Amino acid sequence: MAGSSFGTLFRIATYGESHGKGIGVVIDGCPAGLNIDEDLIASDLKRRRPGQSAITTQRKEEDVPQIISGVFEGKSTGTPIHIFIANKDHRSKDYSQIRDTFRPSHADNTYTAKYGLRDYRGGGRASARETVARVAAGAIAKMLLQRFGVSVHAYVSQVGPIRLKSEDEITLDLVESNPIRCPNESKARAMEDLIRSVKKQGDTVGGVITCQIDNCPVGLGEPVFDKLHADLGKAMLSINAVKGFEYGSGFSAAEMRGSQHNDIMVQCEDKITTLTNNNGGIQGGISNGMPIHFRIAFKPVATLLRDQSTIDKDGREVMLKGKGRHDPCVVPRAVPIVEAMAALVIADHLLRQRVSKI
Amino acid sequence: MAGSSFGTLFRIATYGESHGKGIGVVIDGCPAGLNIDEDLIASDLKRRRPGQSAITTQRKEEDVPQIISGVFEGKSTGTPIHIFIANKDHRSKDYSQIRDTFRPSHADNTYTAKYGLRDYRGGGRASARETVARVAAGAIAKMLLQRFGVSVHAYVSQVGPIRLKSEDEITLDLVESNPIRCPNESKARAMEDLIRSVKKQGDTVGGVITCQIDNCPVGLGEPVFDKLHADLGKAMLSINAVKGFEYGSGFSAAEMRGSQHNDIMVQCEDKITTLTNNNGGIQGGISNGMPIHFRIAFKPVATLLRDQSTIDKDGREVMLKGKGRHDPCVVPRAVPIVEAMAALVIADHLLRQRVSKI
Amino acid sequence: MAGSSFGTLFRIATYGESHGKGIGVVIDGCPAGLNIDEDLIASDLKRRRPGQSAITTQRKEEDVPQIISGVFEGKSTGTPIHIFIANKDHRSKDYSQIRDTFRPSHADNTYTAKYGLRDYRGGGRASARETVARVAAGAIAKMLLQRFGVSVHAYVSQVGPIRLKSEDEITLDLVESNPIRCPNESKARAMEDLIRSVKKQGDTVGGVITCQIDNCPVGLGEPVFDKLHADLGKAMLSINAVKGFEYGSGFSAAEMRGSQHNDIMVQCEDKITTLTNNNGGIQGGISNGMPIHFRIAFKPVATLLRDQSTIDKDGREVMLKGKGRHDPCVVPRAVPIVEAMAALVIADHLLRQRVSKI
Amino acid sequence: MAGSSFGTLFRIATYGESHGKGIGVVIDGCPAGLNIDEDLIASDLKRRRPGQSAITTQRKEEDVPQIISGVFEGKSTGTPIHIFIANKDHRSKDYSQIRDTFRPSHADNTYTAKYGLRDYRGGGRASARETVARVAAGAIAKMLLQRFGVSVHAYVSQVGPIRLKSEDEITLDLVESNPIRCPNESKARAMEDLIRSVKKQGDTVGGVITCQIDNCPVGLGEPVFDKLHADLGKAMLSINAVKGFEYGSGFSAAEMRGSQHNDIMVQCEDKITTLTNNNGGIQGGISNGMPIHFRIAFKPVATLLRDQSTIDKDGREVMLKGKGRHDPCVVPRAVPIVEAMAALVIADHLLRQRVSKI
Repeated sequence: MAGSSFGTLFRIATYGESHGKGIGVVIDGCPAGLNIDEDLIASDLKRRRPGQSAITTQRKEEDVPQIISGVFEGKSTGTPIHIFIANKDHRSKDYSQIRDTFRPSHADNTYTAKYGLRDYRGGGRASARETVARVAAGAIAKMLLQRFGVSVHAYVSQVGPIRLKSEDEITLDLVESNPIRCPNESKARAMEDLIRSVKKQGDTVGGVITCQIDNCPVGLGEPVFDKLHADLGKAMLSINAVKGFEYGSGFSAAEMRGSQHNDIMVQCEDKITTLTNNNGGIQGGISNGMPIHFRIAFKPVATLLRDQSTIDKDGREVMLKGKGRHDPCVVPRAVPIVEAMAALVIADHLLRQRVSKI
Repeated sequence: MAGSSFGTLFRIATYGESHGKGIGVVIDGCPAGLNIDEDLIASDLKRRRPGQSAITTQRKEEDVPQIISGVFEGKSTGTPIHIFIANKDHRSKDYSQIRDTFRPSHADNTYTAKYGLRDYRGGGRASARETVARVAAGAIAKMLLQRFGVSVHAYVSQVGPIRLKSEDEITLDLVESNPIRCPNESKARAMEDLIRSVKKQGDTVGGVITCQIDNCPVGLGEPVFDKLHADLGKAMLSINAVKGFEYGSGFSAAEMRGSQHNDIMVQCEDKITTLTNNNGGIQGGISNGMPIHFRIAFKPVATLLRDQSTIDKDGREVMLKGKGRHDPCVVPRAVPIVEAMAALVIADHLLRQRVSKI
Repeated sequence: MAGSSFGTLFRIATYGESHGKGIGVVIDGCPAGLNIDEDLIASDLKRRRPGQSAITTQRKEEDVPQIISGVFEGKSTGTPIHIFIANKDHRSKDYSQIRDTFRPSHADNTYTAKYGLRDYRGGGRASARETVARVAAGAIAKMLLQRFGVSVHAYVSQVGPIRLKSEDEITLDLVESNPIRCPNESKARAMEDLIRSVKKQGDTVGGVITCQIDNCPVGLGEPVFDKLHADLGKAMLSINAVKGFEYGSGFSAAEMRGSQHNDIMVQCEDKITTLTNNNGGIQGGISNGMPIHFRIAFKPVATLLRDQSTIDKDGREVMLKGKGRHDPCVVPRAVPIVEAMAALVIADHLLRQRVSKI
Repeated sequence: MAGSSFGTLFRIATYGESHGKGIGVVIDGCPAGLNIDEDLIASDLKRRRPGQSAITTQRKEEDVPQIISGVFEGKSTGTPIHIFIANKDHRSKDYSQIRDTFRPSHADNTYTAKYGLRDYRGGGRASARETVARVAAGAIAKMLLQRFGVSVHAYVSQVGPIRLKSEDEITLDLVESNPIRCPNESKARAMEDLIRSVKKQGDTVGGVITCQIDNCPVGLGEPVFDKLHADLGKAMLSINAVKGFEYGSGFSAAEMRGSQHNDIMVQCEDKITTLTNNNGGIQGGISNGMPIHFRIAFKPVATLLRDQSTIDKDGREVMLKGKGRHDPCVVPRAVPIVEAMAALVIADHLLRQRVSKI
């Protein structure tokens, strides 16, 4: 109840701090009989891992997932699946600078205010390292979705001012072929150049990730509060550094007329499709069978390689030295995190849907 | 569990359909001893009510709230507060047109797919009439917030292409002085003109609401999944017609550099403030004492006064006649709904915060 | 979250006080497409109603259930079902005696300590009148169970020292034929005589209800904390005046040897049965297909027709006058309440079971 | 949601199988600032451990608890506390006998029916080994209770037909001085003799544990469904082999008169006490400041050192060989489990109580 659980039927509870013994997740609610592919967990963790390319932090995290329970002879048993990822690179280094300092745009002061104390090593629980647990759990959710033919793909659609436009070609197969995870090669190169230049300046830059869910069955999502897009929105907004979420037409809907925005339905064989998809695959909070798509805005990473003025825990002004091994731009590594959270939401609603009718 | 409940400790469950006997809400978790001001419930319902001005639907809903339980001698008793709002204007009219027709960009087809049947009268549970329950519960939440000095104010900041800009003066006291609920008079007039013109064309238009929460204590919000902005985001996205949510710098963060986005902290007497507020009052998912602000995008109302092509339940193409008494723009009446949902989230986290420390 | 909700997927939230405007329940999670039989709700409420026989309180409660939402054209729609029962007999009488007095073995002092105030009229929320909401919701749950062939029957098996013994014949059809709801005529008469005599003395007496669930599918119940009997136990213990719960062999198991207690399995066609049923139809927390049976102990009603010494809210000793219209023995009227709670638990687990396998 | 979580605010999620890599628990909701005493966790695990005396199984489980997260510099941080206990003694032995056999009065057949497959090694998730997680979490809960002066003590009050009677002296300090955990020496010896004799016969025997909670603040427990005794009852009934729960007067209340059962209140300085305690410290579901006491019935262990007739997964009759290292009586080792579950319930309600008043 203190915020480290997510989901209703396909429910996860995560734990662990950045520089503690490790990070893990307990999934309570994965149906029995699912084939568990440990390689898929490992490969998604690899996509999230620091040090994977020249434009990500050079910090090393091996991130080997260990399945501790809930899987027997290669299948889920219906009991809780616990996945543990040990922290390998928690050098018991000198924390004296950050122990008493509140770093700008970090959670140091808010955690201290909330709890009266904090684990200051590497950000503790507030560190984005926590997302390894989400990616591991999301891999299990993806296995469930695969079983029902649903696919989840995310990619980088904007870095700083460089963005994919409607005229840009999108080839999902290209996403893993460049370090940006952008489905358009020339935009990927421009984004990479920008990130390199920002990094040289000791600065960081924000971006946007787009996510698309294909072949989602009609009927997922619960009316009123647990609308499918509301649960997707919460899932995305819970990821570190996210500042905004929009689905379908999103913020551009504010400028549109109803006559322009309405998605006209047509019957195609035994399926209803819509001529446009301004509603992003979700109507009244419930999936309508069209592709689900949404966009997530990420702020620039708060840790800079520049000195910054800030205060310490006693309110005294101090100068924070720019150092550490941090990403100049978070979005390339956030792609598997977005996919994981999306998969968790859809898996949960796939199960919830089983009890909607007699 | 089927989606009609919201909140953890200050928890509500709503029920009711647009053209059924009425709409209501049960609040389980309002602390005992709160003075309950029935007039505040009634006045917020009035702000939401149809027919309040020339630019809203002329449908009449009296919306008289009745407190059925949980209040004794003017105070909350700690037991469930049930508020009931009877449906007055549910003329048992001719539903033959919509009974078998799937209206474009409505939930008719998704509800039918999900449940195998639907209450087709006026949209049933999918109708925005459901939000009267939210506004009533939100009024109780506001009373709790008032007790702790927290205030919640929302206003219209965009209608179609007309938007409040950074140079526009904002006077919160003006919000209730114009039918748009815009805190800038000249912009309010321009927006009103636009809505009138759109209405004449039988069309509708989208918009944006901005919400600001002042004097929120430091420390609200739970780490990881129940971050304060994640819960606010879900709350807002669960409102009918919402397509996007952003807080603080929002989507503009994607274009920014870290050196520009970081909010530098300074100590002011016994309080920490930040020189900028790009993080929108929330750092690491936890309130930091600065004003909380966020924006919500609404799509244009789907019901038009124009004929539209669509399909019926058997997949046959039919022409939907443009009629009914609907809003040409939803945002003016959505202002109290946004405030209600914001108040519910903050009230819930105010209570959750009580158990974070020994 | 404040304790007025029950169930996970078939979830109810109740509200209302004994002498307020009414009592009600919102069921969120009843699957769509269930035929709703309003008469069954009314008839179960009638079985619970005061004044139904000479041995129950002569207080009159008409208890007419009104379905406010969630049912359309005779079927559940999948949205919340709200049932309201108005309080008819809340004579706005003189509460001066109980307003400031803490009645022995009532919740007057504990509610005051917990909340700082209390609705003292007729016990407020602590009154057993609250159980009308359970019976109404339980009737809906019974309809769901009927659909799957499951039946729930409870009966009185003990009043004071008079108890059904293993040699006594049990005829479930007789339960509604006598005011005790005992399935054995001669024991029923003896119990009735005892209650009449106790009543004459201005006293009250306790009893035991036995409940049996037939044709429950194999596989209901979740391992570890939500074992089927743990959820049944909580359900029963939450009923007013209940002091104990046992299932299968119950407390007598403490005296038994394993060789005597173990239920030996045999295969009968495609079903596994056991030669004995000491486990009461539940093995490892999961139903095994045998009849489920359990027993619930009720204390004697605390309100007496005798004067009793007690204290007032200021701690002064006062004499509480014996008056009021209360039951000399609660168990006959508690039979439908036990059935309702049992039906709610089984309905919930029927739905939960749908997501246990791929 | 699949049953491996318990509690509302002080909430635990457990995982792990008897013969898998280990067992663990994640506590989400322990307030920050609690001093964590790792020795207390270890010493309670030792009390639960097999092989601790001649009358318990000689199976060796070292049960070393490792705190993986949520504790920093000796204090809880408010983030999830994960405790892991590796399985040391899971000899990868020959499971051929139990792989296909359904043991009498075990969960082999119900798990198979529920999930379509099962981890047959040592009972998998259905094994009582799962309770190490409860004891570890319960130790943290006890630390919280100690901080508020609340104590929880359980002891064995019955083994087979030998029971503590009202005239027997009870000395809680003696509980840990004998292998039975009985607070009366002569009864302890008689119980021990009985267990030895039962063991020689290759048989097992049931028993009863009594639990007492002292110094519990007034006001804990939520009205209606989450009554304090209902939550205690569910907690106890969720423990392996439990068949019944009663509190205060329990089943004996059924035979009593109201005039005899009512607890008369008297004011003692600033505290209300009652002359008797038939209500077991709980009135209307809410603690009243008197000692809380309840009793739990355990069935005899189902694994015998005798051959038993049973069936295999294909329904064929087979003879199950009596072997293995199991307890002849479960209650001595169940004492710390009962205390742990009681502590978890009280800790949860201590926190829940913080939000009951303004």
